[in-house]
Amino acid sequence: MKHLIKNGTLLLWNGTEYSLEQKELLINNSVIEKIGGITPEDAELCEVTDAENKLIMPGLINLHTHVYMNFMKNSADDLPFNNWLFDRILPIESKLNKDDFYWGTMLGCIEMLRTGTTSYLDMHICENECAQAAMDSGMRAFMGKCIRGEDLYEKDGDFSKALEEQEKYESDLIKFVLSPHSVYACSEKMLSQVADEAEKRNMLKHIHMSESKKEVDDCLEKYGKTPVDFLESSGFLDEKTIAAHCVKLNSNDIDILRNRKVNVATNPSSNAKLCNGIAPVSEMLREGVNVCLGTDSAASNNTLNMFREMNIFSLIHKAKKEDATTLSATEVLKSVSINPAKALGMKDEIGIIREGSKADLIFVDLKANSLFPNNNVVSSLCYSANGSEVESVMVGGKFLMKGRQLTVIDEERVYFEIDKICRKYL
Amino acid sequence: MKHLIKNGTLLLWNGTEYSLEQKELLINNSVIEKIGGITPEDAELCEVTDAENKLIMPGLINLHTHVYMNFMKNSADDLPFNNWLFDRILPIESKLNKDDFYWGTMLGCIEMLRTGTTSYLDMHICENECAQAAMDSGMRAFMGKCIRGEDLYEKDGDFSKALEEQEKYESDLIKFVLSPHSVYACSEKMLSQVADEAEKRNMLKHIHMSESKKEVDDCLEKYGKTPVDFLESSGFLDEKTIAAHCVKLNSNDIDILRNRKVNVATNPSSNAKLCNGIAPVSEMLREGVNVCLGTDSAASNNTLNMFREMNIFSLIHKAKKEDATTLSATEVLKSVSINPAKALGMKDEIGIIREGSKADLIFVDLKANSLFPNNNVVSSLCYSANGSEVESVMVGGKFLMKGRQLTVIDEERVYFEIDKICRKYL
Repeated sequence: MKHLIKNGTLLLWNGTEYSLEQKELLINNSVIEKIGGITPEDAELCEVTDAENKLIMPGLINLHTHVYMNFMKNSADDLPFNNWLFDRILPIESKLNKDDFYWGTMLGCIEMLRTGTTSYLDMHICENECAQAAMDSGMRAFMGKCIRGEDLYEKDGDFSKALEEQEKYESDLIKFVLSPHSVYACSEKMLSQVADEAEKRNMLKHIHMSESKKEVDDCLEKYGKTPVDFLESSGFLDEKTIAAHCVKLNSNDIDILRNRKVNVATNPSSNAKLCNGIAPVSEMLREGVNVCLGTDSAASNNTLNMFREMNIFSLIHKAKKEDATTLSATEVLKSVSINPAKALGMKDEIGIIREGSKADLIFVDLKANSLFPNNNVVSSLCYSANGSEVESVMVGGKFLMKGRQLTVIDEERVYFEIDKICRKYL
Repeated sequence: MKHLIKNGTLLLWNGTEYSLEQKELLINNSVIEKIGGITPEDAELCEVTDAENKLIMPGLINLHTHVYMNFMKNSADDLPFNNWLFDRILPIESKLNKDDFYWGTMLGCIEMLRTGTTSYLDMHICENECAQAAMDSGMRAFMGKCIRGEDLYEKDGDFSKALEEQEKYESDLIKFVLSPHSVYACSEKMLSQVADEAEKRNMLKHIHMSESKKEVDDCLEKYGKTPVDFLESSGFLDEKTIAAHCVKLNSNDIDILRNRKVNVATNPSSNAKLCNGIAPVSEMLREGVNVCLGTDSAASNNTLNMFREMNIFSLIHKAKKEDATTLSATEVLKSVSINPAKALGMKDEIGIIREGSKADLIFVDLKANSLFPNNNVVSSLCYSANGSEVESVMVGGKFLMKGRQLTVIDEERVYFEIDKICRKYL
């Protein structure tokens, strides 16, 4: 299937800065085949979309979330982390059945699509159902069942389930990632085993790291090392590692992240909301660490809206540093596109509009009141957009939302099922 | 004119907490006449609005802004305060003509209405035009021409213009406020004169106070006192004072704010964006200071969306304090409703839904994806809403937006005029 996108304004990246260009886009199946210079022959048999007054930009990438938790949003607020987790979240999770994970994930996919996210990295706890929902949503998903415990090869353990799931669901759009929970939920032995398996299987690794002071203190007590230092000595950290949070770091930790080329998924709203503070993002960027943005789950955010996350990301760090040049709009935009594409091993394939890249695109209404007047479009995406400006979304050359109508997900059905789930547990 | 609002969910305040109730509302001209218990006789000759699946809540109050600057949004970003002001903003302002202020204010009114703000406190620099726009928008506006200089009674100075404007425009919806710019733009003599005139005329005072380190340092050098201490000794501070910013405070300053019952308008996004840091809001709240929320201008925010401001307000302070109980959703909601109503001398008249209060109401779509599921509506307004959920807006019993269509402002005309202004100056 071929698409011709006419009259739109493209957000292009030249390696140093973003620019806007009025050019046509030719999409052939899942890939952007041509930008401009499209001949009448090229356009034959194309489905044509008029994108007048639309900004066409790369779909956003959410580099750390737990999508299934979407139905729990606003069910556990203004609480310290331990009360949040042990008194509210875990008691709910312990009761969920497989269908609940499916519908929770679908609800999260709706929120992501409606606010311009096309790819996400998911750490889930229910094999098959979260992957099935990702597949049914049409989104680009990177995911893995959360692995915990003493030995990776424990019979019927998380690892075997993660592999079974991979076998069943891996596709062009869905990729699996080994996802040990954290240094406090996995033994040293298991973390080394994960590192070995990831290398053998050429897989990415996704872990929570140095999220809270307690995590760091406990790790220091148990291993005499910070979580970063400990994971480095276990051979876990490399350029195929995505470490979520990285809030409580010392300067040696940051040196390790730089030297090992670890990708960091920072989650400013969740870190704020669960009282973990503000990550040393400026310091990581100064050292050249690849910093990417995530929302964490909607139970600790309470949305998967990456436009809102971009805004708070920039402002919270400007406020912390009392420096207005901290995290410019361009840096913020890179943290949801170019940087996470690299982290996911898809540099130049997603997070960017170029010939040969995947057609993962969002169409943003430049006439939306929030963005008007368009004095500086890159700034407005960071400082003025609220996510509601996203009008259409395409993943791998297929429209998943067009004119604000979801084309693949049956939104009413999802709401109906979520209503039932909330009545049951909340 | 009478309105009957049926089938909606009301957000009510009982003095301690918010609750949701399914009750009908009877509005008689500008006032809420009855909540529930509405008889067929009451409902005779009413215009009836069905508010099924809508949350009806008090319109939000933005307690510090400069509305006319709305067309400058995203024209000066990622810059330190001095470059922002002297290299970008002032050169633009110096060229503006009266019409530009009018259209800039109208654009800001559109953004406020579309995101649920019904009242705002405006410090402007162009007599008549900003008030005319406020009047034409139908919003509830508190405003004053910014006063600067050595002597309040200077011939043809800001004060005389401010009074002329008041004479011409004051109404049930538009109230005037004496608005000396700051301790660095006004002499000691002038600030005392303003305090005397405000007392004599029973007017509110609105001033920028302790926004930046430089302001405090300069004031210490010039007067040997902090701005708060200096204004207190000038007899300026009282419960009819609204002090914007209050970022750089010491504990003695906070004691003065409490003792003098000064109302504080905090602007977290603007303070972050212009590198002034994070105000000591928890400390002020602990002392019982009346803390209210504002956006400042869209040139330093870059939006007048109070839902986004509520979210960042809560999160930035939770992050700063590393305490999840800081600024609960209820406290945040009060800071845009009950607290600013008190600051504006309209306690129980606006910012609350009760019999006898003004019918300044917003209708929020509870089926919006961002708010769904509605596990906790107060939380969702603070942590999940992005402003696009506002479907209808009523000020003083008159719909200014209904079903997302503006009913009073000609939106296309405003955009047309703003386009011209931007082409001229930006």
